[in-house]
Order: sequence, then structure tokens, then C-alpha cells
Amino acid sequence: MEFSEVNGLLHGGDYNADQWLDRPEILKEDIQLMKKAGVNVVTLGIFSWASLEPEEGVFTFEWLDQIMDSMYENGIYVILATPSAGKPPWMAKKYPEIMQTDRARVRHLYGRRKTQCNSSKVYQEKVRIIDEKLAARYAHHPALLMWHISNEVSGECHCSDCQENFRKWLKNKYGTIDNLNKQYCSKFWSHTYNDWSEIESPAPHGESAVHGLMLDYKRFSSDMLIRFVKMELDIVKKYNPDIPVTTNMYDVNCEVNYNRLADILDVTSWDSYPLWHCGTDKKSEWKKAVEAAFHFDFCRSLKHAPFVLMESTTSTNNHFEISKLKRPGMHMLSSMQAVACGSDSVMYFQWRQSLGAYEKFHSAVVSHNGSEDTRVFHDVVEVGEKVRSLFFIKNTKTWSDVAIIYDWENMRALYEQKNLRNHNQEYDVIMYEHYEAILKNYVSVDIIDQSADFSKYKLIIAPMLYMFKTGTQEKIKNYVEQGGNFVMTYYSGIVNENDLCFECWSPYGLNDVFGVKSEEIDSLCDDEYNQFTYNGKVYKAKFYCDLLNVCGAEVLSKYECDFYAGRPVLTKNNYKQGMAYYIACRSEKDFLYDFYHTLIDETGIRRIIDSPYVDSVMVKERADEESRYVFYMNFSVEQRTICGIQLAGYEVQLKKEKRILEK
Amino acid sequence: MEFSEVNGLLHGGDYNADQWLDRPEILKEDIQLMKKAGVNVVTLGIFSWASLEPEEGVFTFEWLDQIMDSMYENGIYVILATPSAGKPPWMAKKYPEIMQTDRARVRHLYGRRKTQCNSSKVYQEKVRIIDEKLAARYAHHPALLMWHISNEVSGECHCSDCQENFRKWLKNKYGTIDNLNKQYCSKFWSHTYNDWSEIESPAPHGESAVHGLMLDYKRFSSDMLIRFVKMELDIVKKYNPDIPVTTNMYDVNCEVNYNRLADILDVTSWDSYPLWHCGTDKKSEWKKAVEAAFHFDFCRSLKHAPFVLMESTTSTNNHFEISKLKRPGMHMLSSMQAVACGSDSVMYFQWRQSLGAYEKFHSAVVSHNGSEDTRVFHDVVEVGEKVRSLFFIKNTKTWSDVAIIYDWENMRALYEQKNLRNHNQEYDVIMYEHYEAILKNYVSVDIIDQSADFSKYKLIIAPMLYMFKTGTQEKIKNYVEQGGNFVMTYYSGIVNENDLCFECWSPYGLNDVFGVKSEEIDSLCDDEYNQFTYNGKVYKAKFYCDLLNVCGAEVLSKYECDFYAGRPVLTKNNYKQGMAYYIACRSEKDFLYDFYHTLIDETGIRRIIDSPYVDSVMVKERADEESRYVFYMNFSVEQRTICGIQLAGYEVQLKKEKRILEK
Amino acid sequence: MEFSEVNGLLHGGDYNADQWLDRPEILKEDIQLMKKAGVNVVTLGIFSWASLEPEEGVFTFEWLDQIMDSMYENGIYVILATPSAGKPPWMAKKYPEIMQTDRARVRHLYGRRKTQCNSSKVYQEKVRIIDEKLAARYAHHPALLMWHISNEVSGECHCSDCQENFRKWLKNKYGTIDNLNKQYCSKFWSHTYNDWSEIESPAPHGESAVHGLMLDYKRFSSDMLIRFVKMELDIVKKYNPDIPVTTNMYDVNCEVNYNRLADILDVTSWDSYPLWHCGTDKKSEWKKAVEAAFHFDFCRSLKHAPFVLMESTTSTNNHFEISKLKRPGMHMLSSMQAVACGSDSVMYFQWRQSLGAYEKFHSAVVSHNGSEDTRVFHDVVEVGEKVRSLFFIKNTKTWSDVAIIYDWENMRALYEQKNLRNHNQEYDVIMYEHYEAILKNYVSVDIIDQSADFSKYKLIIAPMLYMFKTGTQEKIKNYVEQGGNFVMTYYSGIVNENDLCFECWSPYGLNDVFGVKSEEIDSLCDDEYNQFTYNGKVYKAKFYCDLLNVCGAEVLSKYECDFYAGRPVLTKNNYKQGMAYYIACRSEKDFLYDFYHTLIDETGIRRIIDSPYVDSVMVKERADEESRYVFYMNFSVEQRTICGIQLAGYEVQLKKEKRILEK
Repeated sequence: MEFSEVNGLLHGGDYNADQWLDRPEILKEDIQLMKKAGVNVVTLGIFSWASLEPEEGVFTFEWLDQIMDSMYENGIYVILATPSAGKPPWMAKKYPEIMQTDRARVRHLYGRRKTQCNSSKVYQEKVRIIDEKLAARYAHHPALLMWHISNEVSGECHCSDCQENFRKWLKNKYGTIDNLNKQYCSKFWSHTYNDWSEIESPAPHGESAVHGLMLDYKRFSSDMLIRFVKMELDIVKKYNPDIPVTTNMYDVNCEVNYNRLADILDVTSWDSYPLWHCGTDKKSEWKKAVEAAFHFDFCRSLKHAPFVLMESTTSTNNHFEISKLKRPGMHMLSSMQAVACGSDSVMYFQWRQSLGAYEKFHSAVVSHNGSEDTRVFHDVVEVGEKVRSLFFIKNTKTWSDVAIIYDWENMRALYEQKNLRNHNQEYDVIMYEHYEAILKNYVSVDIIDQSADFSKYKLIIAPMLYMFKTGTQEKIKNYVEQGGNFVMTYYSGIVNENDLCFECWSPYGLNDVFGVKSEEIDSLCDDEYNQFTYNGKVYKAKFYCDLLNVCGAEVLSKYECDFYAGRPVLTKNNYKQGMAYYIACRSEKDFLYDFYHTLIDETGIRRIIDSPYVDSVMVKERADEESRYVFYMNFSVEQRTICGIQLAGYEVQLKKEKRILEK
Repeated sequence: MEFSEVNGLLHGGDYNADQWLDRPEILKEDIQLMKKAGVNVVTLGIFSWASLEPEEGVFTFEWLDQIMDSMYENGIYVILATPSAGKPPWMAKKYPEIMQTDRARVRHLYGRRKTQCNSSKVYQEKVRIIDEKLAARYAHHPALLMWHISNEVSGECHCSDCQENFRKWLKNKYGTIDNLNKQYCSKFWSHTYNDWSEIESPAPHGESAVHGLMLDYKRFSSDMLIRFVKMELDIVKKYNPDIPVTTNMYDVNCEVNYNRLADILDVTSWDSYPLWHCGTDKKSEWKKAVEAAFHFDFCRSLKHAPFVLMESTTSTNNHFEISKLKRPGMHMLSSMQAVACGSDSVMYFQWRQSLGAYEKFHSAVVSHNGSEDTRVFHDVVEVGEKVRSLFFIKNTKTWSDVAIIYDWENMRALYEQKNLRNHNQEYDVIMYEHYEAILKNYVSVDIIDQSADFSKYKLIIAPMLYMFKTGTQEKIKNYVEQGGNFVMTYYSGIVNENDLCFECWSPYGLNDVFGVKSEEIDSLCDDEYNQFTYNGKVYKAKFYCDLLNVCGAEVLSKYECDFYAGRPVLTKNNYKQGMAYYIACRSEKDFLYDFYHTLIDETGIRRIIDSPYVDSVMVKERADEESRYVFYMNFSVEQRTICGIQLAGYEVQLKKEKRILEK
Repeated sequence: MEFSEVNGLLHGGDYNADQWLDRPEILKEDIQLMKKAGVNVVTLGIFSWASLEPEEGVFTFEWLDQIMDSMYENGIYVILATPSAGKPPWMAKKYPEIMQTDRARVRHLYGRRKTQCNSSKVYQEKVRIIDEKLAARYAHHPALLMWHISNEVSGECHCSDCQENFRKWLKNKYGTIDNLNKQYCSKFWSHTYNDWSEIESPAPHGESAVHGLMLDYKRFSSDMLIRFVKMELDIVKKYNPDIPVTTNMYDVNCEVNYNRLADILDVTSWDSYPLWHCGTDKKSEWKKAVEAAFHFDFCRSLKHAPFVLMESTTSTNNHFEISKLKRPGMHMLSSMQAVACGSDSVMYFQWRQSLGAYEKFHSAVVSHNGSEDTRVFHDVVEVGEKVRSLFFIKNTKTWSDVAIIYDWENMRALYEQKNLRNHNQEYDVIMYEHYEAILKNYVSVDIIDQSADFSKYKLIIAPMLYMFKTGTQEKIKNYVEQGGNFVMTYYSGIVNENDLCFECWSPYGLNDVFGVKSEEIDSLCDDEYNQFTYNGKVYKAKFYCDLLNVCGAEVLSKYECDFYAGRPVLTKNNYKQGMAYYIACRSEKDFLYDFYHTLIDETGIRRIIDSPYVDSVMVKERADEESRYVFYMNFSVEQRTICGIQLAGYEVQLKKEKRILEK
């Protein structure tokens, strides 16, 4: 059965049943408790390799047969994982070459998880064997809903195999060593390569000065991980092409380019772990909620389709410095937030707390005390009931007029290189700032990369798009030409995709579109500010300040301090059918809210609701052709009123309305 | 002669005479200065291996003969060390396998001290040879008072020998690999071992996720060090079983389980280095004094007998970031504090400052200028006179009704694992807080571990006893049943001795004894607080907050904030003959003082003096059958009055009283 | 042509022409732009090895011929570099043994720059070959003004070759292993060496406790680097002894002892990178200016002759955390400051920004946009004009009556060892404090080491001269005896040149000269102070406080707090013809200004101008026999008036006066 054909939303989570095989009473009890909790899906087998292949070539699927049958009998779907994120000790003992080699060129000893080299031939062979067996056995099992490839794929390796693969990858990319030398500007410090064999991956005790190389190793590592997922995916698809395949994502700064990973998946899924309630700042829940929403919107935008919330916590997460209990109401609120942003599931890591090891204090539906009479269990039951009642949300979509560009390659370039600020580029934080300003205007937004189709948006925002990949300046030009609204900021259009500076005034190729050219960029210390006035209010300028020369743009605001007082800080340029805005410095969140508020008004972008921002209240919308479902979510512990609706602390309410189609 | 037969207290210190063998006039002068300083003991030979065996198999004891004879002739006892803490360069050059291998699996190069692998067969053989020679030659020397095995034993090694030893140790502990897998919860992340040979010690680039393994390696390392001390001890005992044996301890968080080390020693001894006078906080001397007293009480409690203050400083200690001079009065006060807590000696590292290398700025009795006309020398003379006058203190004891459990294995479990707070468990700091509250009530206290005999105490306090070893819950139950008073806190009784969670409401096995069961534990950020009221005063709740369900206990106080307002924070339960108290959160020091003040009153525990706490004044007692000796110690620089006694800044006074026997 | 024969000052900078060989139009444009910018010198070839020897034994000098000819034709001098700071990848690939081995004994992989072992025989052979070729080809080229050996030489290596070299170096220094053992105080911790072969260089996982060894490795490494420069220098001199040789220095805390390096050079040169404008403190430019001036005065004092400002920035420096733009005026001001302190050039890194890699955002005369219509280019043009107009400054000198001792070996001893303060000895900061106090008195000052000729100064200041090399106490005694004024501070005269403590009261050998002897030294925490009164004002005492006993000195001020209240803090002793001052503690900058102000008055030392210190205004002087040229430099952004001269923010003015010869 296809995921989209499931009748209603999913509720459930990771079930590490193999930890309890010697305790059949526990397994029996779990079924009863799952029913009480309204669970209709479990994820099985993520770290079960040692239980499935206890010795090399010896396979023990009987326990899994039994669990899967039992689930089916009890009406619970199974998302079945390939076990490739955790190898058994015997494998590392017999084939030490499967272990990851870090940047310092130290090959790891057995331990933890995801510490293998996913490109190791031996490892891939071992994965192939177990995957084939799993797929052959379960691809047509009636409980099987979806394949879950590996777990939170990430990591980079520097073993000799990876060095060889990297050289091949480079050869494929650059063709000739001369071309590579040129793109790496390798005459700098006399680093001209004569031969591919001279190239080594970056190392703390080796190369770190050639930016192109640093960046390419990140790209190569991402490609290798995606290739690994593809290998596993092809195996399971071979046995039943109808079962959808996903893998759980978890970090927008991950080593993997998720936009490219999503290309090969049927469904995207996300592991969400905001650190709720930590800190004494009353605004902190809102901040976490914004970041979580960004991640959900990002995950949904990857395929412009509903996604799976694959992991979330029922209460504490012991990976953090401080494990806070979820406060009453927060479990419902945070679960519904995922749904509001496009998830067709609410799922947990994990069903039952493990008794020992690294995550023994990670919360679960069932705690160490095994009782159903706990606050946490009651919270889960309540969410289960709510999830069941929201069956109509399934497969509804999100329509966005606005997109923000968060580009993985740009991010890598900003983080791997020497910049004009070297202690923190804060690309993600800056992203959240623009995103929050749109959110607070109660407007739907997609998160895309520079390779995306721009044409469907009325407004595209590209904060700090330092790197223009080949053709990006053309895409932007065409987009504006044809009537789009484009917002660009400081520190944009400076380098090509190999981090080679454009020989021009930035932003590259777009001086006519934006009507400005940037001559210099000032970096400000963390406690240092310039200022400017917009809509009658004074705002701080900080972080980076572009010093622009105007060539056609209308100047909306100017710097007011320092030697560049009087130079433009905010400009607008009517280019053909569209409008191009340039924000020359980083500023305060309030400025962005104010600026986008005006812009949304001027461009007639549709708001989900017509209300000024109410403190800590987030509003999200899903819709089908006829109806729209508006989620009102209060991330303050205090009561709020919005559009006449009263929301208690941490309350979520859903309103269904007839959808008026536009466009 | 036995240590306990020495007539009076010891005064002296480390004498590195071999640094001055080419300067006979210095050695002669030292004797004269020692007499002036009232020195009656020196420790010889701690780092003399290079002087005793300058080449492999070539031994040069003549110089030591001479020094020992000279000491004897001048009435100075000798504590003679085995030289195993510092090997000569020739040994590492010829046998590189003796050097320690660290967690990163890097074998150390020669350098510093204690950098060998004490389990190395070659090293042990070399130690055996030199120890046999030393013991054969000096075991009956008339100056010999005590053997000093090695120096501040500590450290862990990960060489291949240690890996093999560890596997044997595990086999011995667990019997079968299945049993080990079960205790390690090794199915988690697929870590099931098939064979002992697959096990490797923890490594930053290897295993760190299996908590049982992490903990066992700490235990194994401690066992290996104790076995090493035992090997040396057996050698020296063979030649003269009447000479007592000690080794100097120095850190309650040491790699060695001192409770187990003490089992094999005749006498315990301590190296005490509080960082006096550092900081501008006037209360800071009191804080240091509390910690020093805790260490002394700990060292005395190990064998419930007087101990040796083996090392202390005459003024600066150049290991610290800042080397402060001891202020006038502090040398006498800090020396007497050790005696007050049970030391039968005042001894220094070191007699004469070395001219070069790592500790050249560590203070000594005789400074680089060689003069006796220095403030430091005068201070030492004064202490020498005082020590001589206190001959009657020798062998007097400390009687305590109260014990605090500071458990080495519990400490290791708290520090090696993921917890609900991961940045600092502060087990030692929490310990000092409870200890200080008892101290300020002027009550004698012992420091014990969970293996101790509980029966002799009226009150036992177990702060954060996270781990219950097999039978601990039974011991506590029996203790309370038979009339004991037991105080337990948050985060207790959660895991077994292999860090495997109990499947119950904590504290494990004691819900009926305490009348409470803990459902959840909230962790608070460092600047976050709940609150409660006790004896009419409001106190902060912080760090960990247990959320208790009451099953029989009397609730003495409740949380007043957050969603768990109204749940108990302090409970009392009358269980059979005894009383069981549960403190559900960490609080302020003032609360503990107040709480224990009431408890001491209610349980009729004897106070050394009957006085409320006077700021910065510590009172300690030693006693024999007839008399008790009360030390009044003022750790403030200002004058204080207590029980009618006026104490100048940093003054100590001793009052002898007739002892009224109780019990 | 000799550098001193150049008619006027130099203006130009690093020209990495080989990055643009495939862009002849750029090279042509560069000539035009250089003319516009008033450039009369370029530095060529610093990192050109890959362009000069693209394959082993294949040499391609044609492009360099062309550039040099082109420079000559356009009247631009060339400073030609040997390329030894950056080797090409092929070399590391073929001869991995040329790569540096770090303290952890990890041999580096190819990458970055200066990562080779300069003592490697293979490396030296490769350098010899390329240097011979370069020198043979260009030593008589008419454009050649100077040789530039390597680049910012630094670094230490621990490869097996270096271990062998170190043992030879030690053998040469100590003669016998017994002598080394004695100087290393090696009986401490049993470290007595039997044989040279047992010695290994310091390592984090090996030796760090033998201070003599730590120090000797720093000396050895410095000697090796100087020997390497000498090897290169001898080669180029062989072909034309008339061309002067320099190498660019950059850090007073460098691994190289610059005083010894300068001995072999014809001209010294400096790379100056103050972090202008960073921070919101308005005083911060002054602070940076003081440090820059110290470095310039240091560089000039090395040979008591004008030096070359080899590198400076036109605006941002992307090595820093924050790259600030140079504010209007600062480029002129900072360039003129170098000239004021003795530079006969203003030169930049770099002429044209590289398009990629590590320094692509380091500012240049020509930016990525290639335009001459930028603020930066205009600034450079203006400086070019000013430099041309100052032709008469060329070869003028600086006469100083005052010298401050900044001793490289003393610095190494303070930084490599355990001290009475271990977190920061701040030797350089303390140096700047004394230097600034002299600067603010508008007095010329030289920076010398303890090996210098003392006789030409009226006042010598030796802050924290912890180490006395052999004879230093005699030199100081003779200097004072013959009428000199000498200022010594706390923590001085404590160890000999091998960090072995003198067996006396410090300062060693000078108790009679200073009339004091130091008994103890108190270390103060960072927020802790004592105090004293001088000239009616109360000042803080901090950091180190010597506790002195007076033996003849006049006490000018006493400690006022703590137990050493009443002991001297400032003394003065008339010894034969001279005067010896002792400052027993570190204090505030204002005290030093006040103290030196009085001292300068009393000793009749000549002031450049007769004015009290005007905030942020620096005054420096250069002179020939007839005239003196006084530079008035305002490092405040606000206007200042000094001696009737009005200075705008960041303005510099030069006044020429008739010189009145004295002495």
C-alpha cells in the first residue's frame, strides 16, 4: 500500500522490540499499551543488525517475522528499516577496513553508531546481503507500509578508498588537472597540482587553505552518502516497487545535501528535537517553534508534499545538556505543529525506554517503570486521539507565494572558508530571521535552494547568497524580468561555485537588475552597530555592511553613522516587469518584520489570516481543493487572543474554512 | 617500630637528598636546619630510582645508607618510598613497552612521572627487583618508620596488555558473554558481542556509548592499580612484617577506589593542597577549609583510625594557576586542621626547593636562598614547636554519630555516563554541601561508601546515590527498620551496579521505606529555580527536581511553582523503628543547615559544642577514653567569638575537657 | 644598487604576477595602475616555486624574466624572493620526509605553507638548486634591489632528523651528559639521562617537565631556522655580494630569535598588521598604535638603522576574526607611522587580490572588481604621492637615550615553564606598558636584548627580566657603576640561562646595586589588588608583588594593604656613579607614566617635544646631522591640539626643525 493511500494520519514510533526478546510478557504488554495509546504504526529494525545476523552469514529473522505478524494482526503498520546505521562488533573485528577514518587520518575503533565508512566495498557488500534478505522476506508483508533506509545518514570518511573515490570524482568534475588548478586558484601559495594522485582530502595537519578543495570534499561526501542510500533503495525497490522509501533527515546543516537526497526518495521524513522549556526567557518557546517550523517547511518543500514526522520526543531528550520535561500542553502543541506544517504523522523515538546505554534516559511512551499511569503516557493517549480525529488532514497541501532560498552549497561555502567574518557566519540564524519575519506576517512560505523552479512564487528571498552557481544570476534576472519580486542581501553574488571570486562589483551579473553595485563590505564587531531609518523607525545595522554605489535603484534608507553615512542601506529597483530589493546590512528582527509587512502589502501576497502578529502565536494552513484548515498555535504559556479566538497557554486550535481559490 | 607506637606526632616532609649528593655541605646544613625546625621525620626516595639504579642492574645504595644513618643518628625517623612512580630514561629507551598508552591509543614517550603502564610485565619485574633490594637492605634499619609505596597512584592505560587483562577481568566478572551483553544492554545500537576478543577499552575514536563498559574500565583500572600496590607491599612486608605500609592519596575523584585501596594498607595518608587565599571573596577560606576537612574526614574514615598528613605546602604551590603566599597564621591553622580531623602528623612537600624543573617554585621549608631567616622558615619552626607540644593527641580518635555516603562507584557512574544533566553532575560539590551543613552544626561526621557497616551511625545521609549496588536497598531497609535515620535525595536508586535502569519507580526497592515513588525528574538550567518553604523560610529548588507520588510519607514541604507546584519536595516516613527522609531537589546551603539542624535536634545526635554556627569557625574533636580535645579554628581573617572563646583571625585554639561517655 | 642608495622612500608591495600569466591584459593593466599609484617597487616570487619549477628539475624562468624586464622598463624596483616558504605538491608527494612533524609526532600532509621541515636534507637540497638558478639568472638584473629570503620564517619540527640534530646541538652546548643533567636538574622525578640517545624533544605525550629541555628546543629551533636563512643568503650573495638581503619578520613572540637573525641580514624588514578599528572602545586605535610603534622600534633597533615596511594592508585583513575596513585617514596615518618609526618604505601585501583560496579577501591595492575608482585605490594614490614627497627622510636616523630590554630567551623561559602564575605571563603586554609610558613622555626609545651594548643609553628599563644570561648581572652592575640609570622590576634575576634557580635572594648578584633583596613573591588573582602611593596618588599593585628586604635602598613607596603593608614597593639606590630603581609589583599604566615622567626630568633625558601627553597623539622623530623631522600623529578620530598644532582626526603632520646637537 502507498503511504498516501493510508486512511488518516500515522501515530506511533520506533519500537526496539529486539531488546526484549527474552521477555515475551513485555512484548505482549506492548501491544495492549499501543492500543491504549492509539498507535497505528511502528518503525522496526533500525539498529537490529546484531539480532538479524548475529554471526557472519547466520540470519535469524524469526523474531522479526513474529513481531511483524503480531503488528499486522493488531492493525499496526510497520515502517521497516535497513540496519546499515549500526554494524555488529563481529564485522569491525573481522573487517577493520569498514571503519571510518577521520580528518586526522585516524581509523576509528568499533563503537557508537554511523562510524563505518559507507563507501567501503566490504561494508557495502555486507549491507547488500542483509538488505536483499530483508527485502526478499518482507517486501510483500501485509504490515509493511514503508522502507526506512539506514538512519540519519551523515558523516565523512578519509580512508584510502575515499581518497581514490575523491580523485575520480574530481576527474569527472574538472576533466583536466589544469582546469582544477584554475578553479582552485592553486598558484596561491604554490599549490599547483601536476597530477590527480597529488590530491589528498582536507586535513587539520594537511590542506585547509584551498577553498575549492574544502568545498568539493563536502560535496563529494554528500554524493557518496546519497549514492549509498540509492544502493539500498534500489535493492528494496527491486522486490516491490510499490512500497515507498524514505530515510530520516534531522539537520539542515547536515553533511548531506537534502535537496539532492530528496530527489531519490518517495517520501521525506524528519526527526524533530527542539529543546523546549530550556532557559528562563519566556520568548524562548517561540524561538524554538520558529526553528522547528522552518525545519518542517524545509522538509515539506523538498518534495512539495506531505512528509513524515519520523521521530520526536514524548518528554526529555538526554542528548542535550539539560533534559527538560515537556510541560503540560506542549506535547499536543508540538505534535500538532508538525501536522500544521505538512506532516502526515506524529511519531516518536521511542516506544519503550531502553534499560541501558547511551539513550537510556531519552524519554519514551513507556518509561522504565512500565506504567501506563504516568503523565507522559496520558499525554500520548491524548495526542493519539487527536491524530485519529484529524484523518481529513491526510494528503492536504500547503500553497506558498513566498520562498526563501536556503542553499546547501552556499552554506558549505560560508562555513568551510575564510570570510570577512571568521568566527561565525550564522547562515542558519540569518535564515531564521527572514523566515520568522514572514511567519509573523502569517504568510505561507517554502524553503528552496538555488536550483529550484522560481516561477511559481511571487516573492523570493535570498539572504546572504554568497555563492552563485552557474546560471543563478540569469535565473534571478529572468525571474524579475517576468514580474517576480526578489530580495537580496549583503554578501551576495561574490563567488562562483568553486569559491572563486567574480571579477566584478557584487552581486555578480545583477548590477542592472538591482541598480546597485557593492564596492566594499565592512564587518562589524558583535557589539558594534551602524543605524538607519525605515518607516519612521530607527534600526540597527550590524554584522556585514555593504557599501553600495547606486546605479539606478531607488534608495529607501541610508546609513546614518560612520564614514559611510549617507550611502544606501535599502534599495528598490524596478527592473522590467519585476522589482528587485537589496538589503545592504544585517539588522534587527523588527526591521525585517516591518519591511516584509510593507512588501507583502504592496505585492498583494495572500495572508493566511488578516491579523497583525500576536505575540508567540503561530498560524499555519493546510488545504485541499475545497477547504482550508488553519492551525492557531500559542507557544506562550499565557493566554492569547487572535482573530477573536481565545487560546489558552500552549493551546492549539484548528479551524476549517471554505477555500477561496485564487490565481 | 609501629607508627602507632611513636611517642607524639610527626613533623617533617619529603627530602630529596639525592639532588644534593655533590653538595655535602648542603646535606650537613639540612640536619642543622631540621633540628631548628623541630623535624622528626623525613620521607626519602620517592623519585630516586635514577640515583639507586643509574644503569640497568647497577645499584648504588651507598648514598641512601649514609642519609638513613645520618637521620638515625640525629633522631629523625625515615618513611622510605619505593621509587615506582618515576622510572629513569634508560628504562623507557630499552623497554618502550613500559610506557602508558592513552585512550587515543597513543603510546607515550618518556617524560613527566607516572606515565608508565603499571600493569606492564617488564615494568613490574623492574619494580620487583628494586623493591626487593630496598627491602632487603633497609627493612630492619633503625630509622625506618614506615614504607611509602610509589606516589599518588593513578592513571589508566590502554596498551595491548591492558586490553588482554581487561578481557580476563570481564570474563571473571560476567562468566559468559551473554551475561555481559545483557548487563551492557548491548542490543542498543547493535553492539552485541559474540566473543570476548571483540571487546576494546573505551576510546574517543571508538566506544563511548556502552555505559557498562565505560564504568567497568574505570573499575578495572582501579583494580590494576591496587594490585600493583599490593605487589609492592607484599615485597616489603616479606622482609619485615612489622613495618607499617602506606601510600599517599590525594584526590577523592581519583582513578583509584580509595576504599578498596585502604583495605590493603596499614595506615592511610593524604596529600593536602587547598588553594588558600585565592580570590577576593572573604568566604573563600571557609570554602577551602570545608573541602580540606572533608578530605581529612574521608581519609580518617577509610580505616577509622588516625592518618598521616603526608604532604602539604609551607606556602605556594606552583601547580596552580596562581601561587599565593600563605598569609600569617594560615600555616599553623591549616596544619592544625589536619590534626584536628585525625592526622597524627604534619608533613610537607618538601624540605628544600629543587633548583630546576617542574616544581622549582613549589614552596619548601628551605627556599632557594637557603636562609633560615625567612618568614616561611619561622612559620615552620612555630608549627614544629606546636606539634611537639601536642604529643598527647597521638592515637586519639574521632567518634561520629553521622555518616555521609560518598561512593566511588556511584561517582564514576555519574561522571562516565549520559545523564539527565550532561554538563556537570557536581557529585563532589553536592557532597560538600551536605557535609558543610553537618560541620556547621558542630557535629562529627564520617565519610563512608555504600559497602560500609551502617549500624554504628544514628544518621546516614546519601546524596544523589544514583547507583545501588547489589543489596544496597536491603541494607538501607534494614538500617531504617532497626531504628536508623536515613536521608536520601533526588536522582537516587535509579541504576544497578552496571548502570542498567531498574524497572520500577525510584528509589529502587525503597518506595515503602520512604513512602514515595519518583515518577519523573526535571532538570533545571543553571539560572532556573523552583521554590519551597521550610520552617517558615523560602528556599530555591534547582538542578534536579524529582516529581514524587506519595505512598505513605508525611509531606514536610511542597514545590510552589511550575506545573508541579503542590507536589512534595521534602518528606518524612516513619518506617518500623526508624525514620526515612527524602529531599526531592537540590537547594541552597542554608536549607541544608536548617534541615539538618532540626534533624540533629530531633534525633538527639551529640554536638561537639552547643553553639549556633559562627561565621567561618570550624570545630573538630578528637578524644580518648577520658578526655576530649576540641579544636576551635577561625578561617576568617577577622576576629570571632565562639562559646566565649575569642579567636583572632586565622587563629586555632585547643581546649581539653573531660569526656562524658555516652551510648 | 644598495638599498641605502635609493633616492627616496619605497612604495609598492607583493606582486603575485604568476597568478595572472594566462591574462596578459591584466599584467599590462597592472603597470598602468602601478604608475597611477606611485608604485616604485614590487616584491616578486614569494610563493612562485610551482611556477618556476613546475616539475622536478624543469625550470621556467621566462615569465619572471619578462616581469622583471617590464618592471625595469617602467622604473620599478624588484625585491626578489626565494620561494622556500611554499613548496609545490609534487615535492611532498615524491619526498614525504620534507614535511614537518609536529610535537605530537604527526608528520604533516601537504597543505598550507611553511609546513615543511626546513632542516630536511632533501628540502635544503631542493632549495639550494632553485636558489642557485634564481641567483645566477637575476643577481645582476638591473631591476633587482634586494633579496627577500623565504617568508616569515617560523615553525618547529620534531622529525627524526631534527631529533638527531638536536642531540648534536646539545652535545655542542653541554659537552658532557653530566653537565646537561646538572643544568636540567634532572634528578627531579628521576629523569637523569645516561646517554644523548635517550633525549627526545618535548612532546604533549612525552617530556614537558624538564624546563631546560623545553627552553633548549626553542633555542635549537630558532638556530635551525637562522641557519636555513643563512644557507639561502650565502647562495644569493655568492652571485652578487652587493645586493642587500633581508627576510620579513612579523611577530616579536616568533619562534625565531630576531636579534640573532638580524645579525646575518643586511636590512631588517617588518610585516605590520594591526587590527585597526576593531572594538567600540575609542581608545583602541591608540592601543594598536602603541603596539605597532613598539614593533617598528624593535625592528629598527635590531640593526640601529632604517628598515623596510615589507607588508601592510590597504584595508581589510581576512586572517582576523573580523575584517574591518580602514577608515578614511587611517591608511595615510598608519603608513606614515611606519616611516616615523624608521621605515624607509611603505609596502603592501598585496598589489592585486587573488581570486581564490585562503587570502582572497585580504585587501589589496586593486580589488576583485579591478577598478581604479575605489576608495582604497584613491587612498593608495594619496600615500604614493606623500611617500614621493618625503624623499629627504630616506636614511635619516633615530637617536634614543632610553632602551627597553625585550629579551627573546627570557620570553621563551617565561612562556615555556611553570611559573608562580601559570595562566599568562603577559611578558609582551607588560613590555607595551613600559614602552607606552616612555612614548607618552615623547621620548625616543630603542628595544634591545640583554646581549646589547648598554653604554650608549642614559636609561635602561628591564621589565620582568626573569632570566639572567651569563654575565648579565655584571653588565648591569658596570652600567650603573659608570653612571647609568637602570630600572628593574619584580620577578627578575631568578634563573640562569638554563632556567636553573640562583641560590640567593633575587635579583641575582645585584642586591648591593639595587639595595634590596626579594624574599618571596606573591601572585595576585586577576581581580585582586594591593596599593601604594606615589607623588601623592594612589595606585594599584597587582599580578606579582615582590616582598623586599631593604639593604641600602631609599624607599620611595610602600605597600599599603595585606600582611606585607609597609614593605617597600618602589626603591631607588645610588650605586657608585649611577642610580638603580626597583619596582616591586606590576601597577597601572598611569603609575608608569608618572614614574618615568619624574625619572626623565631627573636624569635630563631629551624629549622630542616639550608637552604633556595629549590623548591619542603620538610623536616620533627622525633626524640627520642637520635637521630633525617630527611626526605628529593623531590616533583619535577626534581633533587634537599639541604644541599649538591642530590635528584633525587620524591626521599626521610632519615638521622639520633645525637639529641642535647634544651630548
